[in-house]
Amino acid sequence: MSRYMSSRFADLEAYVPGEQPQDMQYVKLNTNESPFPPAPAVTEAVKAEIDRLNLYPDPEGKVLRQKLAELYGVKTENIFLANGSDELLSFFFMTFCDRERGVAFPAVSYGFYPVYADLYGLDAQIIPLRENFRLAAEDYCGIGKNIVIANPNAPTGRTIPLSDIEKILRSNPDHVVMIDEAYIDFGGESCLPLLPKYDNLLICQTFSKFRSLAGGRLGFAIGSPGLIEDLDTIKYSTNSYNVNRLTMAAAVAAIDNNGYYVANSRTIQANRAYTVAELSKLGFETLPSMANFIFTHSPKVDGGTLYQELKARGVLVRHWDKPEITGWCRVTIGSREQMDIFLEKVREILEEAG
Amino acid sequence: MSRYMSSRFADLEAYVPGEQPQDMQYVKLNTNESPFPPAPAVTEAVKAEIDRLNLYPDPEGKVLRQKLAELYGVKTENIFLANGSDELLSFFFMTFCDRERGVAFPAVSYGFYPVYADLYGLDAQIIPLRENFRLAAEDYCGIGKNIVIANPNAPTGRTIPLSDIEKILRSNPDHVVMIDEAYIDFGGESCLPLLPKYDNLLICQTFSKFRSLAGGRLGFAIGSPGLIEDLDTIKYSTNSYNVNRLTMAAAVAAIDNNGYYVANSRTIQANRAYTVAELSKLGFETLPSMANFIFTHSPKVDGGTLYQELKARGVLVRHWDKPEITGWCRVTIGSREQMDIFLEKVREILEEAG
Repeated sequence: MSRYMSSRFADLEAYVPGEQPQDMQYVKLNTNESPFPPAPAVTEAVKAEIDRLNLYPDPEGKVLRQKLAELYGVKTENIFLANGSDELLSFFFMTFCDRERGVAFPAVSYGFYPVYADLYGLDAQIIPLRENFRLAAEDYCGIGKNIVIANPNAPTGRTIPLSDIEKILRSNPDHVVMIDEAYIDFGGESCLPLLPKYDNLLICQTFSKFRSLAGGRLGFAIGSPGLIEDLDTIKYSTNSYNVNRLTMAAAVAAIDNNGYYVANSRTIQANRAYTVAELSKLGFETLPSMANFIFTHSPKVDGGTLYQELKARGVLVRHWDKPEITGWCRVTIGSREQMDIFLEKVREILEEAG
Repeated sequence: MSRYMSSRFADLEAYVPGEQPQDMQYVKLNTNESPFPPAPAVTEAVKAEIDRLNLYPDPEGKVLRQKLAELYGVKTENIFLANGSDELLSFFFMTFCDRERGVAFPAVSYGFYPVYADLYGLDAQIIPLRENFRLAAEDYCGIGKNIVIANPNAPTGRTIPLSDIEKILRSNPDHVVMIDEAYIDFGGESCLPLLPKYDNLLICQTFSKFRSLAGGRLGFAIGSPGLIEDLDTIKYSTNSYNVNRLTMAAAVAAIDNNGYYVANSRTIQANRAYTVAELSKLGFETLPSMANFIFTHSPKVDGGTLYQELKARGVLVRHWDKPEITGWCRVTIGSREQMDIFLEKVREILEEAG
């Protein structure tokens, strides 16, 4: 850091996003992107909007919020828009979490949660997972802190039942429980049905995965009008026009073409089952996943080696050098062709490892 | 605010952006947008990028930063990218300003500065302007605080000479001086030549005005590598992929077609001179402006009335109900046709006022 930076950030360690190498073409299975381009109608909607780029977007995003509200059977005042779900998470930490209210999240989860906690000067309560990376609801019941839980969890892909989420919500009525559903559309069950009963529930979703819009940057929250209004206050004190015009047009068209994305999700789920089965034949253990990625490890090759050997062969997966998960790799589920290349390279690596 | 929001925001009043009415077509002279669409090559560049929307953008924005570095004769490590210059300003306040280092800015300037100060819990030193909204450099010399100054200033359009900026930089060597040059490309003089001499200089620019990309959301900073690295640390702790893929493609093409925007700026400057002259015939006093807007008032009709009467006639300008400037309106300089409609409505209003 320079001598000008505020000293409160002296120990801040930024999040390290998955590699986005610009030098060569990889089979990219490391950032959980969709292998499918946006629906053709999305392309047309973006093209039609380009000539209006000289004008600011609607800061309230009324048209898109109305579309989302219709899709999810809620009202416009239940919807908050963000420049990707990371911005939404940052707003969640800033708006609701402070030293008094605190924050808690699982020890193995999205790596950005502890970064936000550091950024906003919070002593986060980091709660270990149980056997096989299982989240035990009782560890969160009545803890009297704001909570953020990814469901399905990343990088494990494991889900928790709605009944568990409800227990956590009910036992922490004075704190916000954010359920990060970035990966919910690949077979999981959204906790949206709990919304009418719990005004402390905030659901985080994204257009980056299921809706093939990672490049457009759009996340959104669904929550009670009070929570949404609070997030809006912080947004309008940070960056009023946080979602750009082309992405809003793309998102509206994506919702109008939901069937395209549902069909793509079915393909991903089929490719997931296929990949897990093939890996199993090779001796891999893979956690049950409801996401567009799997978390897998082999007794024959450790996670870091597998990552390096795959990268040397042109396939990128994600590996973290953290003790609890260093044996594992997270592999995005892409097209069948991508998964076949991945499996072929895995077989090569195992053969060479003897 | 809901009972869940952090109590530190109890008194926070968010920024109110200029109206973006969706109900009817106005002659929109209220948010300093360009009347010109992006260059044709920008349209083509965006179209070519749509099919890659399923992939995240390059979080480092290397290609665009390289383009900007070439354009401004600096290095890639001197450039920071943001989701609009508002996000950049928010990062500036967050990264460098705290209770110890403080922040100072003029009393009449961009209305978002005091909001950021509140958001980050700072007691800002708010420095009055002198006669005719003139900024006096000596008011900022050696004050020992971070400083943000818009040049040209908004909403006045007035500029300060580089020699004044240099005095401020030299006399506050332990604090960051941000010069907000959002409107620099309409006749003002950028302080970029001071960059090699002052590592406490941070220049803020935007693609929203001169480059017709308000709808795309892109701002950038030029500064010493240390300051840029600090901003990057905060960005990577907030939202790694903060600039979307389509906007980065648009921006690269815009830089490659700089002549189109320079020609548009000349048209705006001619329309500005024309509008000021016509208003002068009607008895208006207008401050000397180097921006794509003017700040003007009439002894015959107060600012609030002029705003309301123009709105009733389909023309939007900006008015603030603040004592120092309540007599004035800020009017964006658009196309000649837009300015003729504006002037026609002004004449009507003055005639009716008798």
